[in-house]
Amino acid sequence: MNRRMVIFLLGRILLLEAVLMLPSVLVGLVYREAITWCFLPAMGALALFGLLGIKKPKDTAIYAREGFLTVAAAWVLMSLFGAVPLWLSGEFNTFWDCLFEIVSGFTTTGASILETVEQLPHCILFWRSFSHWIGGMGVLVFVLAVMPMSEERSMHLMRAEVPGPVVGKLVPRMRDTAKILYTVYTALTVILIILLWAGGMPFFESVCHAFGAAGTGGFSVRNAGIKAYDSTYLHVVLSTFMLLFGVNFSLYHLILIGKWKNAVRSEELRVYGGIVATAVVLIAINTASAATRFGITLRDAYFQVSSIITTTGYATVNFDAWPGFSKMILLLLMFMGACAGSTGGGLKISRIVILFKTVRQEVRKLLHPRAVTVVRMEGKPIHTDLIRATMVFFVLYMTCLAAGVLLLSLGEQDFLTNFTATLACLSNIGPGLALVGPTENYGFYSSASKVLLSLEMLAGRLELFPIIMLFSPLTYRHRSK
Amino acid sequence: MNRRMVIFLLGRILLLEAVLMLPSVLVGLVYREAITWCFLPAMGALALFGLLGIKKPKDTAIYAREGFLTVAAAWVLMSLFGAVPLWLSGEFNTFWDCLFEIVSGFTTTGASILETVEQLPHCILFWRSFSHWIGGMGVLVFVLAVMPMSEERSMHLMRAEVPGPVVGKLVPRMRDTAKILYTVYTALTVILIILLWAGGMPFFESVCHAFGAAGTGGFSVRNAGIKAYDSTYLHVVLSTFMLLFGVNFSLYHLILIGKWKNAVRSEELRVYGGIVATAVVLIAINTASAATRFGITLRDAYFQVSSIITTTGYATVNFDAWPGFSKMILLLLMFMGACAGSTGGGLKISRIVILFKTVRQEVRKLLHPRAVTVVRMEGKPIHTDLIRATMVFFVLYMTCLAAGVLLLSLGEQDFLTNFTATLACLSNIGPGLALVGPTENYGFYSSASKVLLSLEMLAGRLELFPIIMLFSPLTYRHRSK
Repeated sequence: MNRRMVIFLLGRILLLEAVLMLPSVLVGLVYREAITWCFLPAMGALALFGLLGIKKPKDTAIYAREGFLTVAAAWVLMSLFGAVPLWLSGEFNTFWDCLFEIVSGFTTTGASILETVEQLPHCILFWRSFSHWIGGMGVLVFVLAVMPMSEERSMHLMRAEVPGPVVGKLVPRMRDTAKILYTVYTALTVILIILLWAGGMPFFESVCHAFGAAGTGGFSVRNAGIKAYDSTYLHVVLSTFMLLFGVNFSLYHLILIGKWKNAVRSEELRVYGGIVATAVVLIAINTASAATRFGITLRDAYFQVSSIITTTGYATVNFDAWPGFSKMILLLLMFMGACAGSTGGGLKISRIVILFKTVRQEVRKLLHPRAVTVVRMEGKPIHTDLIRATMVFFVLYMTCLAAGVLLLSLGEQDFLTNFTATLACLSNIGPGLALVGPTENYGFYSSASKVLLSLEMLAGRLELFPIIMLFSPLTYRHRSK
Repeated sequence: MNRRMVIFLLGRILLLEAVLMLPSVLVGLVYREAITWCFLPAMGALALFGLLGIKKPKDTAIYAREGFLTVAAAWVLMSLFGAVPLWLSGEFNTFWDCLFEIVSGFTTTGASILETVEQLPHCILFWRSFSHWIGGMGVLVFVLAVMPMSEERSMHLMRAEVPGPVVGKLVPRMRDTAKILYTVYTALTVILIILLWAGGMPFFESVCHAFGAAGTGGFSVRNAGIKAYDSTYLHVVLSTFMLLFGVNFSLYHLILIGKWKNAVRSEELRVYGGIVATAVVLIAINTASAATRFGITLRDAYFQVSSIITTTGYATVNFDAWPGFSKMILLLLMFMGACAGSTGGGLKISRIVILFKTVRQEVRKLLHPRAVTVVRMEGKPIHTDLIRATMVFFVLYMTCLAAGVLLLSLGEQDFLTNFTATLACLSNIGPGLALVGPTENYGFYSSASKVLLSLEMLAGRLELFPIIMLFSPLTYRHRSK
């Protein structure tokens, strides 16, 4: 293994994180908050450790193994350092609480251990929300955008960090692909900030909530969350933008270069739209009551469905109090997640489509053993390697879920709480049901459970393999040729 | 499709069912129960419909499609006719209750809608328990044993009915394989009856409980189930025999022909043993208390684990009152099930092993993209087709589970009840947790929910595909060459 190169890359990421803390310091200065100092030791430590790996090694070759390890280690380190300002702020009980909170931020989960947030200083609130925005698109993608690196090598990093079964280059050079992704991401975020601000949301809150929606995170700066704003306009704008951030970003690139027909024809997009529409209609019918206008019921169903399928986790109603059927639909959406190549978590729609088509093909094969059948997606045949990888991912996802629930059940909480807590962390959603429902928080879990859930969040955000490899002896075993 | 041949085979199975009702009639006569008449109309109807397809068609060719359809239709018809005596007995409220009960019998689930059973006449109790024994090994296997048929054709039927990822012939002729399976099955059952009887269980109860254990069913003839017998001997004998019926029957054949070393070396058997031992130890530690001797705690853990992993469903303690961790272990065992080629349900240990090894291989591939790796099982490389089929099975299993819970949630029950009810039916276990816990029953579900759960039981027993094909338009579509 090329350890020097791994250390070099990690150094770059730590330096980047020091820079990424600057906006929070700026917010603290604007609001004249004395507690802003708590960022300085963290930035100092980041700079110090970052400079340890400043010297670029002669051998810059990295392979798949180094790629996975770098990504896993980068996210763990970023979280450890990122938790320091929260800890120093004195607003949290233990360091594990801070770690849980910032992992939840970077992984765009949005699960919080805080009961109320409005008492927090602005600089801390900003750091929490900004971590969503950073984690949404991925830090390594950002590093790729600013650092020259050979194509094959950047591919190893990108594959380990970008969600979805296939990582496609939008343009021949990886570095340009990363730049396009970040440009689209920034532009959409800015538009959302303006729309929220125009709708009467204070500027600071607009920025923070836009970060939460863009990264499909879900941290709020209000105790009541988005429910605090009694405005259909704001609800509908946020619902729609959450859905937009759940779309594969390569489709925005297609639109930008004029190929909007190809974008609209996307199979994943159509399935995504179909699922959202079906879920909204079913839930609206199921939750309809004489006491509420059907328009409001529909609006609330639209918001909750958009929030859950994109794995954002904002809530405008307490869906834990919905009838069982509606809750079960949300639970299924929690597994699914949004489109591949978006900022959302979960299994991803394209994987669901591949799984469904593979099952269909198997039924055909059993009925007609001699027939030759091919699984197609977006009009093109899918390689059997991708089918196998997708199914392995599904098996591993269920295994991570089961292992999480099993270990959590050593504590005192009930099954539904543990099950939805693990699922909500693994799929990077935030709220679950029962004790971790949308009006509750994760504060009651033990420190050990919080670390476990933090690992589930990281595993979910990095699509399982990097975190599993970090702990697998297979990774460190010297292979005989 | 060769409809005439399908009808011919179905006719044979209906005639066989009429014959299989005779022992119940005999029991009724021995106990001088007037209600025994309720079997006669059912037998008459079976004979009538059975004779409709008496004439063997000239073209006896059947293919995979006919095989799956025959098996699915046979089990549905058997259940419909098998419910008639229960209905006529007047002991059940609706026909759907009777259908649920007998499907639960044939599929060896053991879920009951009855609160108490001791008031039932002996002939009905016997029919319930005997249905477990019939369903355990499979009716079509029995038909194969008594009916001469070409090798390829019997394979199509056997593959659709025998549980497990691969169906192996024990001896060159399929008919002889079926005979060996039934001989081992009968011999083990007789030994168990004698051991139970010798331990002080009344003869009739020994027979019925032996049927329940042999088929890994779980119907009891006592209101309190096996808990009614306060005898460590009986508990341990039953636990051990449940485990024995969960072993791949081909291993017994190996032992019979003197190859016991090969039998003991079986990878699936070792994993099965390892899982049972681990689960027993973990649960015993987790449920240990100062009030109970550890020996008793261990005995109870052994019984419950054996009962759940083999998907039998007998209980000697109310495990719904166990701590969360122990309940979670049982829940995982409910997914796993016993060995392939046994009478148990669930995913089967061999599938779990294949899934686990495939995930391991994928991690290796990601770490060393150019390495050539092979998944091995029982020392032999596994064909990629089998790996794909196993993963598809897993995906489909989870889909059937999710669909079941979603539809059940239209009713009023809580998530844990619906989730474990669907899982307990799909894996052919019987008891779940919460409202369907080991001291409860399924009576409270609506008729629609009972039909849905009956379908889950049939899907689980026939390993999904036959039941799915029964409802899939793909099956009936004429294929263009």
